[in-house]
Amino acid sequence: MSELNLRAERLDAADALAPLRSRFALDDVVYLDGNSLGALPAHVPDRVADVVRREWGELRIRSWTESGWWTAPERIGDRIAPLVGAAPGQVVVGDSTSVNVFKALVGAVRLAGDDRTEILVDATTFPTDGYIAESAARLTGRTLRALTPDEVPGALGPRTAAVLLNHVDYRTGRLHDLPSLTAAIHAAGALAVWDLCHSAGALPVGLDEHGVDLAVGCTYKYLNGGPGAPAFLYVRRELQPRFDSPLPGWNSHAEPFGMSPRYAPAPGAARGRVGTPDILSMLALEAALDVWDGVDIDAVRAKSLALTDFFLECVAAYTEPGRVEPVTPAEHGRRGSQVSLRCDDAGEVMKRLIEAGVVGDFRQPDVLRFGFTPLYTTFADAERAARILGSLLR
Amino acid sequence: MSELNLRAERLDAADALAPLRSRFALDDVVYLDGNSLGALPAHVPDRVADVVRREWGELRIRSWTESGWWTAPERIGDRIAPLVGAAPGQVVVGDSTSVNVFKALVGAVRLAGDDRTEILVDATTFPTDGYIAESAARLTGRTLRALTPDEVPGALGPRTAAVLLNHVDYRTGRLHDLPSLTAAIHAAGALAVWDLCHSAGALPVGLDEHGVDLAVGCTYKYLNGGPGAPAFLYVRRELQPRFDSPLPGWNSHAEPFGMSPRYAPAPGAARGRVGTPDILSMLALEAALDVWDGVDIDAVRAKSLALTDFFLECVAAYTEPGRVEPVTPAEHGRRGSQVSLRCDDAGEVMKRLIEAGVVGDFRQPDVLRFGFTPLYTTFADAERAARILGSLLR
Repeated sequence: MSELNLRAERLDAADALAPLRSRFALDDVVYLDGNSLGALPAHVPDRVADVVRREWGELRIRSWTESGWWTAPERIGDRIAPLVGAAPGQVVVGDSTSVNVFKALVGAVRLAGDDRTEILVDATTFPTDGYIAESAARLTGRTLRALTPDEVPGALGPRTAAVLLNHVDYRTGRLHDLPSLTAAIHAAGALAVWDLCHSAGALPVGLDEHGVDLAVGCTYKYLNGGPGAPAFLYVRRELQPRFDSPLPGWNSHAEPFGMSPRYAPAPGAARGRVGTPDILSMLALEAALDVWDGVDIDAVRAKSLALTDFFLECVAAYTEPGRVEPVTPAEHGRRGSQVSLRCDDAGEVMKRLIEAGVVGDFRQPDVLRFGFTPLYTTFADAERAARILGSLLR
Repeated sequence: MSELNLRAERLDAADALAPLRSRFALDDVVYLDGNSLGALPAHVPDRVADVVRREWGELRIRSWTESGWWTAPERIGDRIAPLVGAAPGQVVVGDSTSVNVFKALVGAVRLAGDDRTEILVDATTFPTDGYIAESAARLTGRTLRALTPDEVPGALGPRTAAVLLNHVDYRTGRLHDLPSLTAAIHAAGALAVWDLCHSAGALPVGLDEHGVDLAVGCTYKYLNGGPGAPAFLYVRRELQPRFDSPLPGWNSHAEPFGMSPRYAPAPGAARGRVGTPDILSMLALEAALDVWDGVDIDAVRAKSLALTDFFLECVAAYTEPGRVEPVTPAEHGRRGSQVSLRCDDAGEVMKRLIEAGVVGDFRQPDVLRFGFTPLYTTFADAERAARILGSLLR
C-alpha cells in the first residue's frame, strides 16, 4: 500500500462527514461527476413512489392542497435558502436555470431603470447564460458586453444596468470573488446577478451577507435533486416589491385562482413563479434535500478543499510531469469544488477513465473535469482516481 | 333501477373504448376532473421507479445518452404529434405551458415582421395566456388587444401580427372553430397561435391539416402525464428555419456540447427547447402516453360527445328546472370534452359533491365544471354524477 493510499485511509477515518455517504445509492465506481448530476439519495425512490402512487394515483387533484403541491416552490426554496446564505422568503424553485436567468436578468434591467443601457456578462460563462443574456438585452433594448470577470470592475459605469456572473466557472473550476465583485457593481449603482450552478451546495455563498441582488442556481449538481430537477431563483427581499418578471404566469399572481384577466403580482418569492410546477421532479428534489439535515456548509467547504488539495497532490505524484496541467487555481480562495486538468487527448482519456471505473467528464476542447461532492466523495476515491489516471497516461 | 341507469349500463356495454379504463389506477370515486389532472396510468409507477433507481441511481450521468434522456423532448413530442394532427418533427416537450406561450407568441411576432404591430388575444382565455401575451407585447414593442374569439375576424387587419386563441375555453367548455379562425387569420397575413390545453387528447385538432402556425398544449390533463408534466410546443415545419426563440437556452443550440459562446439555433423542433429538461416528469409523461397505443382520436371524440350528451340529459332529468344552467354549448361542433353548469352556490355545491364521491371542480365565480376523459370515464359515472348532483340540489 502506497503512502498516499495510507494517507487517504487516515483522512477518511478522520472525516466527520464520512457517514453521510451512506445516505446515497453508490457503488464501486469512483463518481466524480456530481457537479454534472448528483448521485441518488437512497431514500428518494420511496418518496417518489409515494408521490406517484398515492398523491397522484389516489388523491389526484386533491393533492394540490392536501399534499402541499401548490406551495412546494416556496417551501423547497426555503430549504435551499440556508445553503446559499439567504433568509427565508427569498428563494423559489421552478423552471430551468436558463429560464431563471432570463427572469433574473430582465428583472434586474427593469430595476436598474431606463437610463442604464448596458448589461455586462461573463464571457467565460456556461454558454446558456450568454445566449439568454443576449436575448434579454435584445428584448429590453439594452446593449450586451461580454468580458472576463476580472475586467468587470474596470467596465462598470453609470450606464451599467446589471452584471451576470458565474460564481464558479464550469470549465476551470475557478471561484470568483462574489463579495468584492458585488460591492464594485453596487458602487457603480448597478445590479449583481449571480449564477450559482457550480457553488450551491458546494461552498458558502452568503447571498444576504454580501447584498447580492438576484441569483439563480441548479439543483441537480451539488444539491442532488435528480436529472433536470427545477432550478431556483433568489430575489433579495428589498427588491421583491419592484421585481417585474418578464414571465408573469398565473402561478405568480396574487390570487391565482381568482382567474382575473388583470395581472397583479404576488408578494414575496412567489412572484418568481410562472406556470404549473413539475411536481414529480420538484418533490424528488425536496426529498433529496433531507441529506443536508444537520450538515454545516462550512464543514462541506473544508472537506471540499481538503479533497481537491489531496487529489491535486495525488495527480502530481502519479502522473508524469507535463502530461496534464491543472487549470483550477491552487489558491483556496479561487477554487470551487472541482479540479480541471488540461490534457491534449482529454476526450479519449476520459473515455478510458470511465471504462476503468472513474467517472468524470470531458469539456471541449481539452479539459478533464472532476467534481468533488463532499457529502459522498471519499479521499480514497480521490487517490484511486488519480492513480488510475496516472496509469492511463503512462 | 331507473331508465337512465339502464341506459348507462347499455352504453357502457356497447362502448368499444371501455376496456381502456383498466389501463388506469381508479377507484369508486367518480373522477370528472381529468381536464385538470388526468388519472394515473397503472403502469407509470413501475416506469418511474426504474427511471429513479436504475437510470439515475445506477447509470447516473451515463443515462443522458444511454437511457435516451437527451433526446426525450423531441421523442416524446413525436408521440404527441399524431394526437394533435402533426407530422413528426414539429412538436417538442418541455417547460410549462406559460413559458411555451411566451416562446410561441414572441416567435410569431418576429415571424410576422416589424410592420405588424398588434397582437390579438382571447379575452376569455385562461388568464396566464393573457398575462404572458401582455409581457410578449411589451417586450416586442407591440400593442395587445383582448377580445372574444367571435370578434377576431372583424379585428384582423394589415397591422395584425399574431392571434393567440384557446381551442376550448377552460371555463365554459366551448370549442372554437380552429379551421375557420386560422383561415381568417391567414387571410389577413397574420400568424395563428393556438392553446390546446383543453383539446389535446380530447378531440382531433388537425394542426397540419388546418395550417396552424404555432401551438402549445398541456400534457397533464387529457394526456395524463402527471402533475405539472411538461407542456409541448408545435412550430409548423415551414416556419422552423425562421423561428427565433426569445429563450435560446443551450438545449436549443445546433451543437449544445460545443459550448460555443456564439448562439446557433438547432434545426427542427429542438429549436423550441431551452434548458435541461426535467427528466422525471418527462419520462413519466412518456410512459403515460402508452395508454394511447391503438386508440383512434376520432373514436375518443365520438365517445366524448356521447358522454357529455348523456350527462346533460341526466342533469336535466335529475335536477329541478332552473337550478343549474348549462354554459357549455349544446351544439356538438362547439363543445369540448367538459360540461360546465352555472349554479348560484357553485363553490359550496362542489364541496358537497366531492364529499359525496363525485370530483369535478369549481371555477370562479359560479361554475361547476365536469371533465369527461373518454379513456376512462364511463356512462355509469355520468349518470351517477348527475344523480348525486340532483339530490344535493334538492
